[in-house]
Amino acid sequence: MQLAALFHACRSPYAYPVGLEHLRIILKAARGDLAAAVCVHGDRYSWPPDLDRSTPMERLGDDGVHEYWGVTIPAPTRRIRYSIYVRGRDGDYAWLTEYGIAPRRPRRGFFEYPYIHRNDAFAQPEWLRYSVFYQIFPDRFCNGDPTNDPPNVAAWGTPPTGSNRMGGDLAGIRQKLDYLQDLGIGCIYLTPIFAAPSNHKYDTADDYRIDPQFGTEEELKALVKEAHGRGIRILLDAVFNHAGKEWFAFRDVIEKGKDSRYAGWFYDLHSFPVNPEVCNYETFANRIASMPKLDTGNPECRDYLLGVAEYWIRQADIDGWRLDVANEVDHRFWRAFRDRVKGVKPDAFILGEVWHNATDWLQGDQFDSVMNYPWRHATLAFLSGQLDAAEYDRLLCRMRFTYTSEMVRGLVNLLGSHDTPRVRTVLGSREKAAQAAVLLLTSEGVPMIYYGDEVGLEGKGDPDCRRCYPWDDPKQRDTELLSLYRRLIAIRKAFPWLNDGAWETFVADPVTGLFGFRRLPSPLAAPERPANEEGLYVVINNSSRGNAVTVPAGVGVHLVDLLEVEMLTGRVEGDRLELPPHGIAILAPATVAAAMNRKPGLDWKT
Amino acid sequence: MQLAALFHACRSPYAYPVGLEHLRIILKAARGDLAAAVCVHGDRYSWPPDLDRSTPMERLGDDGVHEYWGVTIPAPTRRIRYSIYVRGRDGDYAWLTEYGIAPRRPRRGFFEYPYIHRNDAFAQPEWLRYSVFYQIFPDRFCNGDPTNDPPNVAAWGTPPTGSNRMGGDLAGIRQKLDYLQDLGIGCIYLTPIFAAPSNHKYDTADDYRIDPQFGTEEELKALVKEAHGRGIRILLDAVFNHAGKEWFAFRDVIEKGKDSRYAGWFYDLHSFPVNPEVCNYETFANRIASMPKLDTGNPECRDYLLGVAEYWIRQADIDGWRLDVANEVDHRFWRAFRDRVKGVKPDAFILGEVWHNATDWLQGDQFDSVMNYPWRHATLAFLSGQLDAAEYDRLLCRMRFTYTSEMVRGLVNLLGSHDTPRVRTVLGSREKAAQAAVLLLTSEGVPMIYYGDEVGLEGKGDPDCRRCYPWDDPKQRDTELLSLYRRLIAIRKAFPWLNDGAWETFVADPVTGLFGFRRLPSPLAAPERPANEEGLYVVINNSSRGNAVTVPAGVGVHLVDLLEVEMLTGRVEGDRLELPPHGIAILAPATVAAAMNRKPGLDWKT
Repeated sequence: MQLAALFHACRSPYAYPVGLEHLRIILKAARGDLAAAVCVHGDRYSWPPDLDRSTPMERLGDDGVHEYWGVTIPAPTRRIRYSIYVRGRDGDYAWLTEYGIAPRRPRRGFFEYPYIHRNDAFAQPEWLRYSVFYQIFPDRFCNGDPTNDPPNVAAWGTPPTGSNRMGGDLAGIRQKLDYLQDLGIGCIYLTPIFAAPSNHKYDTADDYRIDPQFGTEEELKALVKEAHGRGIRILLDAVFNHAGKEWFAFRDVIEKGKDSRYAGWFYDLHSFPVNPEVCNYETFANRIASMPKLDTGNPECRDYLLGVAEYWIRQADIDGWRLDVANEVDHRFWRAFRDRVKGVKPDAFILGEVWHNATDWLQGDQFDSVMNYPWRHATLAFLSGQLDAAEYDRLLCRMRFTYTSEMVRGLVNLLGSHDTPRVRTVLGSREKAAQAAVLLLTSEGVPMIYYGDEVGLEGKGDPDCRRCYPWDDPKQRDTELLSLYRRLIAIRKAFPWLNDGAWETFVADPVTGLFGFRRLPSPLAAPERPANEEGLYVVINNSSRGNAVTVPAGVGVHLVDLLEVEMLTGRVEGDRLELPPHGIAILAPATVAAAMNRKPGLDWKT
Repeated sequence: MQLAALFHACRSPYAYPVGLEHLRIILKAARGDLAAAVCVHGDRYSWPPDLDRSTPMERLGDDGVHEYWGVTIPAPTRRIRYSIYVRGRDGDYAWLTEYGIAPRRPRRGFFEYPYIHRNDAFAQPEWLRYSVFYQIFPDRFCNGDPTNDPPNVAAWGTPPTGSNRMGGDLAGIRQKLDYLQDLGIGCIYLTPIFAAPSNHKYDTADDYRIDPQFGTEEELKALVKEAHGRGIRILLDAVFNHAGKEWFAFRDVIEKGKDSRYAGWFYDLHSFPVNPEVCNYETFANRIASMPKLDTGNPECRDYLLGVAEYWIRQADIDGWRLDVANEVDHRFWRAFRDRVKGVKPDAFILGEVWHNATDWLQGDQFDSVMNYPWRHATLAFLSGQLDAAEYDRLLCRMRFTYTSEMVRGLVNLLGSHDTPRVRTVLGSREKAAQAAVLLLTSEGVPMIYYGDEVGLEGKGDPDCRRCYPWDDPKQRDTELLSLYRRLIAIRKAFPWLNDGAWETFVADPVTGLFGFRRLPSPLAAPERPANEEGLYVVINNSSRGNAVTVPAGVGVHLVDLLEVEMLTGRVEGDRLELPPHGIAILAPATVAAAMNRKPGLDWKT
């Protein structure tokens, strides 16, 4: 047994409450090393051997290097003390405590979870479970009101540059709510809409004014109201890491120098006079003069920004904020932000832009979620052949245990955004784009579709990924892919446990490229679920050859394919699935399929 | 190379800022496994291979199972991206990133420390570096004013029970400030002094009133003022996890039941009427009826308690708070507490009672420090023979890397408290108590002496550990031990880098029991320090036999012993030290000893 590989800490994501009377414990060990692991636990104010209970841990998966074991232990007094006993496949055994690895049962140094305090509970909005997100870059989605077009507007569909504008606006989004509702969208995330000189609006000039090129405050209110009427929520983009150079406070600083009452609102003004041409101040990234960095630790600046956050919730009834460059703003600011936002709208959603491990922002005191770019990386790497099926499976496993299960169910998965090349272009084929869609909509977490990806819109990196939605261009608009998205979203909505349910990989074959997994309601949520009677089987044939696989659905279970699209489909006979090159399938027992209002036993292809 | 043992996460305590332009990186590996580790780092907005720098990591120690490597990398832009290259002693190599362990140089998935934000910096009061703490249980330290004695006062020195009172008071502490100043104390921590029915006062009746048995608010003010005049700070004990049953709000709840406006101030009132005899409410620990648990998440209750914290700082100019049962109160409360307290007195000290790993409270947003009970466990286990010298050294190493170096220098080490048996009694001999004192006063962190330990006061567990200070009892008052403490504190104050300096163990022998280490200014603080020209050498002979050791002080260095006490001393000749059974020595080169105003070359024994 590799003792040095044993890892546990009584900290998230290795120990965390599930509800108020259970504690989830995760242990990491060298892959293939452990025969058994047992959590020995009791109340912190009782001492061994009095009241200790032994609860076996379960092997949950491996990432190629490590294996993960877990257990959920009861904590009726909310105060938990525990140690972990491990037995290796080589017969060795050991005990883990906070004081290290011991050869015999410890009498002190236990891990302690002092108190499951309800005021520290991590609670995301319940509506996440039922929502598919849709990201819109407002200038490029739909031009609903040509009267507000900027003077130099380019024709719809012009190749994007860093500065051109296409005339998309709030009126356009409102006109397309039918489309989004039909698609099954539950939440729209708009990149910034406040007055700003650029086309992307990340260089805010006025946080209290809708950019006139997008419309008016009244139009935003109308959009939100109408969206709400259709069960669609609206998320706006908060750019609080930096301002734009036309922002009132920055203009004042340029004018008055160190005498400006706003001098303290900026993170570092290196010298005076402040001069954008010299860029003698701290900015977003390195020396981007148009985006001076804010000092969110300055109380006045902080209060101003919190006021903006509150204003648009109260004024327009928006449903939360996506936070731009969230990882470069101080944690103290985000704690105050959460208190302020949740104080106004308790089920508002707070989504941070963090491309890397975001554990420190997801402790319940700051964000509900982050944009899950690591998932994008893994999925595109798999479908483009940089990772084989086994490597992809392992990386997903590793990511899963990077976070708590509560964090994982809230992560917003995406295949692309305004900051990345588009999925269709990265993968280079509509078949692979379809496979990516299947993975997006059947994974744990919350799926977010970047506008246009559902019709296979192409786009290289910024600015090319910000092309106009091709409403009237059949060549750029893959309606079969759109049908697949529509069907996948319907499946997602029929089985909301796809958000937080269990995941069991049953094939991840580096040779054939087959990747198949079962999704099913979480055992935490429904512990008495009868084996093999629920759940979906998802299979991806990541190969240019046809492939067949046996689905472990149990004897006599009649499987049907829930997909209803022409492309990429296969044949299922009993528990045997045949898939064409780059084929896809979502199989379910007839009993489960019935939940989709399909007749049990119906063939997959109608 | 044991790949599964490699551990790094871009989170405290494995990655943390040192100042505002450096990042400290710590890597854990299987003991004996690595030949080299290199951190490859750059600005987050530049991409490889453009601007990456390679900085070798240094092997810092091992805990018997793991070894720790570390490096401090420059971060001039404050935004850091990095990976870690490791080469095993077996010739294997690998790269660590956030996405896992890779066989070749990664191009993505880097660890990212997004921004070293000054508003998130962890800053403890600077005065910690220079302070030795002294804990007083007020009823038992000194009876300075018999007129405030409770009616049933027991004679000074009566064996403690759970309920008897001895008449100690604030006036007594004030009378003994000469003694404490002469001893070298820099901060006094008083267990609770507010009105409460018990002798320990952890069952508060009135947070705004000094218990009449201890004195008056005026006497507290006078005590603090006089202490400040002597350079001594005063810390009070905040009992915010629970109240006492005579507390105004709890009396109201007993009287008015669910109609009480204070019903929400308590964590859980299971049924009404609230009845201490039935104990139908949540309490401290399990069903301790006299200590109903507070709901610090209730805004009114929270504000009341924060008001108490602020009041005594403003009113009596106290220097901070020790927080009782701090780990069972919610994190949100402590964040508000910190803001409130530091807002009133920026260099106030916040010391939590957390007996286990306290990382989650030491991120800069809550506590400055915790009482370091794990250090007590390790040290007493070593001196009482439950751990050998090598095991002790390894456990210290493990603890050191459980925290950041910033956290470690703030930890308040203790050999005992009102909640534990006394060190003299646990170790069973004055010689071992002296050794414990040497370790307490020469270790990293902040030493805290429990009143009476400096004269070898005996005491088993609570209540026996709360005996009266034996001012007039020569048999209970070991003046030789007191001289040692006085000398050790003088050494501590002469070399304030003992607080945060480096630690190099040079002997930890399981056979002879010798344990010796070198302390020296931190290389972070003084990177150009010439080798072997500074520092102290501390040696403990944890054996009932005499022992000799060679001190690695370099050729021609003349060592002297800084201790000036009769007991337990040894002989030093050149770099050779001979110690009697249970002997102790603190050796320094003559140049260093000069800092203590001793003539260089003077023999250790005056």
